[in-house]
Amino acid sequence: MPTTEALSAETADASRFDGNLTELEYLALASSFNLADGHARQELTPGQSKVVGELPGLWAEAVMRPVDEIEEEAHRAFFHLLGQKSYPGADGRVLACYSSSVAMEIFARALVAETDTIALVHPTFDNIPDILRGVGLRLVALEEDVLHGGDLPAELLAEVGAIFVTTPNNPTGKVLSRERLARLAAQCAETGVVLALDTCFRGFDVAGQYDHYEVLEASGCRWVVIEDTGKLWPTLELKIGWLVRSANVGLPLAKVYSDILLGVSPLIMLMIKGLAEDAADGGLADLHEFIATNRALVRANLDGIPGLTFVDPDSRVSVERIHLGERLAMDVWEKLRAHNVYLLPCAKFHWANPSEGDHMLRIALSRSPVSLDVATRALRDVLLGE
Amino acid sequence: MPTTEALSAETADASRFDGNLTELEYLALASSFNLADGHARQELTPGQSKVVGELPGLWAEAVMRPVDEIEEEAHRAFFHLLGQKSYPGADGRVLACYSSSVAMEIFARALVAETDTIALVHPTFDNIPDILRGVGLRLVALEEDVLHGGDLPAELLAEVGAIFVTTPNNPTGKVLSRERLARLAAQCAETGVVLALDTCFRGFDVAGQYDHYEVLEASGCRWVVIEDTGKLWPTLELKIGWLVRSANVGLPLAKVYSDILLGVSPLIMLMIKGLAEDAADGGLADLHEFIATNRALVRANLDGIPGLTFVDPDSRVSVERIHLGERLAMDVWEKLRAHNVYLLPCAKFHWANPSEGDHMLRIALSRSPVSLDVATRALRDVLLGE
Repeated sequence: MPTTEALSAETADASRFDGNLTELEYLALASSFNLADGHARQELTPGQSKVVGELPGLWAEAVMRPVDEIEEEAHRAFFHLLGQKSYPGADGRVLACYSSSVAMEIFARALVAETDTIALVHPTFDNIPDILRGVGLRLVALEEDVLHGGDLPAELLAEVGAIFVTTPNNPTGKVLSRERLARLAAQCAETGVVLALDTCFRGFDVAGQYDHYEVLEASGCRWVVIEDTGKLWPTLELKIGWLVRSANVGLPLAKVYSDILLGVSPLIMLMIKGLAEDAADGGLADLHEFIATNRALVRANLDGIPGLTFVDPDSRVSVERIHLGERLAMDVWEKLRAHNVYLLPCAKFHWANPSEGDHMLRIALSRSPVSLDVATRALRDVLLGE
Repeated sequence: MPTTEALSAETADASRFDGNLTELEYLALASSFNLADGHARQELTPGQSKVVGELPGLWAEAVMRPVDEIEEEAHRAFFHLLGQKSYPGADGRVLACYSSSVAMEIFARALVAETDTIALVHPTFDNIPDILRGVGLRLVALEEDVLHGGDLPAELLAEVGAIFVTTPNNPTGKVLSRERLARLAAQCAETGVVLALDTCFRGFDVAGQYDHYEVLEASGCRWVVIEDTGKLWPTLELKIGWLVRSANVGLPLAKVYSDILLGVSPLIMLMIKGLAEDAADGGLADLHEFIATNRALVRANLDGIPGLTFVDPDSRVSVERIHLGERLAMDVWEKLRAHNVYLLPCAKFHWANPSEGDHMLRIALSRSPVSLDVATRALRDVLLGE
C-alpha cells in the first residue's frame, strides 16, 4: 500500500495532509480499531465459513467447467438475491470487473469519448468524483434534496451528458425510490442523457432492492449500473464489480473493458455464487440484523454527548454518520488516532464544498461488535474531553 | 465476458471483425483448445496444488495478521525469486494492483498529467498501446532492432516524455540486456525522460532476471516497472500486478492508485508468497522445462510444413510465434475456429503497422501437453490443406 510519505510527496504542499478518503483509510489498515473504510471486516458467519472452507473444491470445479457458465451462475445468484430479476444477463451486457472502482474507471473512460460534463450526486464517496475528473470530465453537483425532491431542472439536463447517482448513497444511506428512478429515467430518455447508477450498498437496504432494471428498461433511456459484491461480505477484498448497460447505451464499454481485463477469477465467481446462496437462505436477513445491532451499539455508546447528533436516522447501510456540533472532525480524528482508533472525517465526501463535512465523522459498521464497542467508547471519552 | 455481438455493435463497421487481441481471446475462452491468451492454463504441479489446498488456512492467517506485513512478505518472495534484490520494498514504492493491466492503467493516467507523447516498443501486446492512447497519449513506435541495436536517437528522446519497453517482449520474447538497460537508463537520466518497463514475462527467462532495480537506481533516471505474477502459474486469474517506481519519478502514481483501490486481497498475497517459495524450491526450473518441452512439441508437430518458419528461435517466454509464409493468418484462424482451436493472429501486435503481422500466428504454451498436441496437429492439417 502507499505510505503517507509517498502520498504527501506527491502533493504540492507537503506540510499539510490533504489526502483523499482512501488515503485516510490506508492509515487505518494496520489498526485493530479501523472503523475507517466501508469494507466488510466482521467475522465470517458459519454459513460463510463453509463456503471459504470449500475453496479448494471450488478451485477444482472452476478448472473443469466453462467460465461463461460459471459467470452466468454467479451473476444470476447475486442479482436475484437483490431483487434484480430483469437484469440483462443473457446477452453480454453484464461485465465482471475486479472491483466496482475498476468498473467505474471503465465507465468513465468510455463516457469521456462522448461528453465532457456529468452531474454527480453530492455528497458521495470521493473516489467517484476523482475518477470522473481524472479522465477529464467536468462535474456538476446534484444535491441530494434536488435529486429526491422531484423532476430535475431542464437546465441541468441540457448542461450534462450523463447523470451519476449512488443509491443507496455513501455516506448518507439515502435510497432513490422506484418512483423517483422512473421519473429520472424518463427525463434521461427524453434528453438522451446517460443515467448511471452505483448500487454498491444496496445489499444492506431492502428499499434499494426493487427491480431497477425493469424500471430502466421500461423507460428506454440509455443507462449503466455498477453492482458490487464487495461491501456485503468479509471476503478479504475478493469481490466482483459488475458493469451493466442498456442495449442502446452507445458507449465503448466493452472495448475499454477489453483493454483492462480478460475476466475476473472463476474461483471468485463460484465463491460469490456460494455466498449469494447462503444469503438467500437467511444470511442476508442475519446481516441486516447484524448491522442494525451494531448501529444500535454505536448510538447507545454515543448517547447523550452534548452537541452530538446522528445525521441519518433512517440509514440501513453499513456506515453511520455523526455530527459533532461545534467540534471539528479533523481535531477529533487526530485525538482518536492517538488511541489507534480510525474513523473517517466527512469533508471529502462533500466533493464540491468540503466545509459542509467539517463537523461530521463516518463510522464503519461492518466490524466485530467488540472492536466497534471499544472504538466508540474511546470516541465517547475523546468527545467528553476525558 | 463481453459477447462478440456486444463488441462488434460498438465498432463503426459491424460487418467485419476488427477487434483487439483480447476480443479474439474472449472467443477462445469456452474452447478446450484455447491456445489464444497468454494466461497459464496448465495443470497445477503437486507443489502448487499444496498451496491451493491450504487456501482456507491462508484465509485464517490473512484475517489474523497485519496486511502490510503480509504484503511485504509477498513482494519479497516474488521479487527475490526473479533476482530483483534491489527493489524498493521498504518505503511504499511498491503498489499492489489487481493485475498488470490495472497497473498499466494507473501508470498511463498518472503519466498523462505530465506529457502527451510516449515511445513504445513495436510490436507488443495491443492492450498496452490501447491503454496509452485511451488516456490521450500520442505514441511513437520504437522498433525492437532500434531498441536493442544501440543508443537511442537524440531526436526520439527529445520528442517524448516517456519510453515504454516490454521485456521480455510479448510476443517476440526479446530481452533487454543489462548493458542495454544501463545505457537506456543513462540516456533517460540525461534527458529527464521517464523509463517504464513491463516485465510481466520475465519469470520464464533467466536472461530477464538480472537485478533491473540495481541498474535503474544507479542511473538516477526516473523509472517505473510493472511486475506481474499473472503469467507464471495457473491461478485462475488470481494474481498481482506490482507498480514500482523511483523516488524521483514525480508522477501522481500513488494518488491515482488511491482512486482505484485500497489494496489487493491478502489471501492472494499469501497464495503468491506460497507459490513463489515453491518456485524458489525447484518449481521455477520445472516450469522452464515444462515450457521448453511444450515448445519442442509444437515445433515437432509443425516440422517440415512448406513455408512455415519459427520466428523467435531463442524465445523462452510462454508463447511461440510462427510465420505462415504466403498464407494469411486470419484465413488460417478462421479454418482452425471450425475445429474449435483458437490461436492469436499477430496483426494487432504490430500496433503501428498491422500488416507486418498478417502472416503470423501466436501459440500459447502454458497449456496441458495434450491440448497443445491436439491443437497443433489440427493446425498442421489445416496448413497442409487436409
